[in-house]
Amino acid sequence: MKKTRLEAFSDGVLAIVITLLILDVKLPAVDYDHLYGSLLKILPGIGIYVLSFLLIGMYWVFHHFAFMLIREVDGVLLWLNILFLLGISFLPFPTSLLGKYPFHTMPVVIYCINLLLVNLIGFITMIYLRRNPQLASEMLTSELHSSQMRLYTGVNLLYVLAIILAFFVPKVSCVLLAMMTVFLIIRSVVFMGIGKCNARWSGQRTAPKESTDFN
Amino acid sequence: MKKTRLEAFSDGVLAIVITLLILDVKLPAVDYDHLYGSLLKILPGIGIYVLSFLLIGMYWVFHHFAFMLIREVDGVLLWLNILFLLGISFLPFPTSLLGKYPFHTMPVVIYCINLLLVNLIGFITMIYLRRNPQLASEMLTSELHSSQMRLYTGVNLLYVLAIILAFFVPKVSCVLLAMMTVFLIIRSVVFMGIGKCNARWSGQRTAPKESTDFN
Amino acid sequence: MKKTRLEAFSDGVLAIVITLLILDVKLPAVDYDHLYGSLLKILPGIGIYVLSFLLIGMYWVFHHFAFMLIREVDGVLLWLNILFLLGISFLPFPTSLLGKYPFHTMPVVIYCINLLLVNLIGFITMIYLRRNPQLASEMLTSELHSSQMRLYTGVNLLYVLAIILAFFVPKVSCVLLAMMTVFLIIRSVVFMGIGKCNARWSGQRTAPKESTDFN
Amino acid sequence: MKKTRLEAFSDGVLAIVITLLILDVKLPAVDYDHLYGSLLKILPGIGIYVLSFLLIGMYWVFHHFAFMLIREVDGVLLWLNILFLLGISFLPFPTSLLGKYPFHTMPVVIYCINLLLVNLIGFITMIYLRRNPQLASEMLTSELHSSQMRLYTGVNLLYVLAIILAFFVPKVSCVLLAMMTVFLIIRSVVFMGIGKCNARWSGQRTAPKESTDFN
Repeated sequence: MKKTRLEAFSDGVLAIVITLLILDVKLPAVDYDHLYGSLLKILPGIGIYVLSFLLIGMYWVFHHFAFMLIREVDGVLLWLNILFLLGISFLPFPTSLLGKYPFHTMPVVIYCINLLLVNLIGFITMIYLRRNPQLASEMLTSELHSSQMRLYTGVNLLYVLAIILAFFVPKVSCVLLAMMTVFLIIRSVVFMGIGKCNARWSGQRTAPKESTDFN
Repeated sequence: MKKTRLEAFSDGVLAIVITLLILDVKLPAVDYDHLYGSLLKILPGIGIYVLSFLLIGMYWVFHHFAFMLIREVDGVLLWLNILFLLGISFLPFPTSLLGKYPFHTMPVVIYCINLLLVNLIGFITMIYLRRNPQLASEMLTSELHSSQMRLYTGVNLLYVLAIILAFFVPKVSCVLLAMMTVFLIIRSVVFMGIGKCNARWSGQRTAPKESTDFN
Repeated sequence: MKKTRLEAFSDGVLAIVITLLILDVKLPAVDYDHLYGSLLKILPGIGIYVLSFLLIGMYWVFHHFAFMLIREVDGVLLWLNILFLLGISFLPFPTSLLGKYPFHTMPVVIYCINLLLVNLIGFITMIYLRRNPQLASEMLTSELHSSQMRLYTGVNLLYVLAIILAFFVPKVSCVLLAMMTVFLIIRSVVFMGIGKCNARWSGQRTAPKESTDFN
Repeated sequence: MKKTRLEAFSDGVLAIVITLLILDVKLPAVDYDHLYGSLLKILPGIGIYVLSFLLIGMYWVFHHFAFMLIREVDGVLLWLNILFLLGISFLPFPTSLLGKYPFHTMPVVIYCINLLLVNLIGFITMIYLRRNPQLASEMLTSELHSSQMRLYTGVNLLYVLAIILAFFVPKVSCVLLAMMTVFLIIRSVVFMGIGKCNARWSGQRTAPKESTDFN
């Protein structure tokens, strides 16, 4: 399996999921006089839409980064990746559920479990990569591996916390997810560097290809 | 973040949004005898569909051009781009709204606000690029930057005008949007050149790649 | 505008349209006992689905071939291409209409007009390319141009014939479209060659790129 | 027809189909009090969703592998590939049917016939490639061809068996399909190698390209 083709296929799936989300932001058929009230009612659904969009955008950035740590794709990494795509592709369902029953326990729990499973696959991928260093690129240092493990563990604990909170104060779970998303986005901005030509991340991927040209 | 991968992902999202629009051009279930009347009723919706299609097509051309001005993507440009995609991906909702309640104030206002936000992100991107010239390609001259700023400002003012007009004569807002779209398409055709091998724009992007081959 | 990026965007749109078609093959909610009768009723809709799928597949092959005749994309070719994509993206609507009212005059007429417009854009593109030989690749010989013009004219006449027939015997129009599609598929198979390594078409596109490597 | 462009188009279609599947996992509009019962009712539909997702993922892997065996695409291979995409693109319909009427004879039969047709096209492609060795890559040895034929025949026999069983015990058919899918996934993991840098499969495709660089 060529790494680039798996990457392109994953990009395709992620681009489609992130765009399909809007199909569930629907207005019930009402007279124009009741349009304003109807729009107010779907506002929470629009909020959930934005949250899911940013989360999938973030997982796309994560996925991109994870693939920079992979040198070669074996059968296990291939199917872990397809399971990851299954998890992301499923997200429109709990998103739609949460939009219909905003701030209720069950939809919040299902939403969080979905995110938890997606994140677990990332977690397992990192462990597998660490145990099979021949599949990892030289970018996956011990230090980076540890920081990644801490990140995945922290995010998973947050999802678990959101699930527990959902049984008592589902609204707080939603706020927690939103805050985590904003935090992770800011973290990824800082990580990539602001206003810097970040040769460290952007150049790494073309390096092997260019080196074959120079040989 | 490799610039080309972000570009491919954005292309994917734009291609999907532009194609999904048709899913909202739906006919209510009627007898064949009432089909003609029913088709007449959704004609404004089809007009809005064509408008949104051309607008997204135009933003795709803009996006392509903007990426020629970018040399490297940092964390801020990455997330500005994802927010741009969020704005474009949301467009099917106000398009559907405007199709259902054609020439009414509220849908026109929401449609224009959506376009305004998309355009604002382009505006901010240009300012950010100007302040971080190390991220810009050599194509982004002072002159080009000024002309881009004028373009984004002009389009934004038009959107604001359309919003104000929507409270009095929503039909005129729609006509204004349609005229602006046609004008911007003609402008982009003239800008790219008619019947000319426009080495200036088309060759620029492959240049760096080819140069590594020649080294 | 890089030719390859416009090609990739077009491929994306065509791939999405061809796949979205299935969303309109829907079964009304019935008991399992009435499932068989319900399935029989949507059989014409499935037939129309297959027809549209093959037609879009064929236009994808046509598009691919047309881009081999283009050397550089100017503003006019860019927007002709976007209009072509608009025409193809609209096809799910008449397909759905024809599936709901199979073998009725109005849906057949709308379906054919849509195809006619798509084909007209191909026709105009060929004329424009001929008048601007600097934009055409060396593959576009006088001979090939003439054969292309004959093909586009023939197909357009067939669409016009199908529209006229639709007012009297709409079923015959559908049969005509189906026969034309099968004929054009067989023609494209023969044109590309059966069992031959057809260096003439498949090699042409990589040639310029490879030549820069060898220089 | 450039092999890579057909491959990219096929990837696009497969990525879209696999992602669209979720659109049919829909909840009927119920009060929050009845949400739990409603969710239980669509559980079989979710199971079928996962099955179809994994099956399409598997056919994507198969498709990728098949294209490594192809050296050049002629008219026949092109249209066999488009027919393959037609078969895969149709799958959301029987998936939706099976989700609505889980474990009933007719939906199971239609689902299996769809898979059978998809698989038959793969079978025919293999035979065609064998008879036209000039189109095959050097990877398609007699041995590999035989093992592929055995695989396609075995899968087809399983689909036929599932169809027959569907008339008596449709549930068993579903279990059979699920077991086959799991088995084929495990087989593909083992085939690609676990934890091995499998130069045999992953390197093969870039080889010709790299060799031109070295010349």
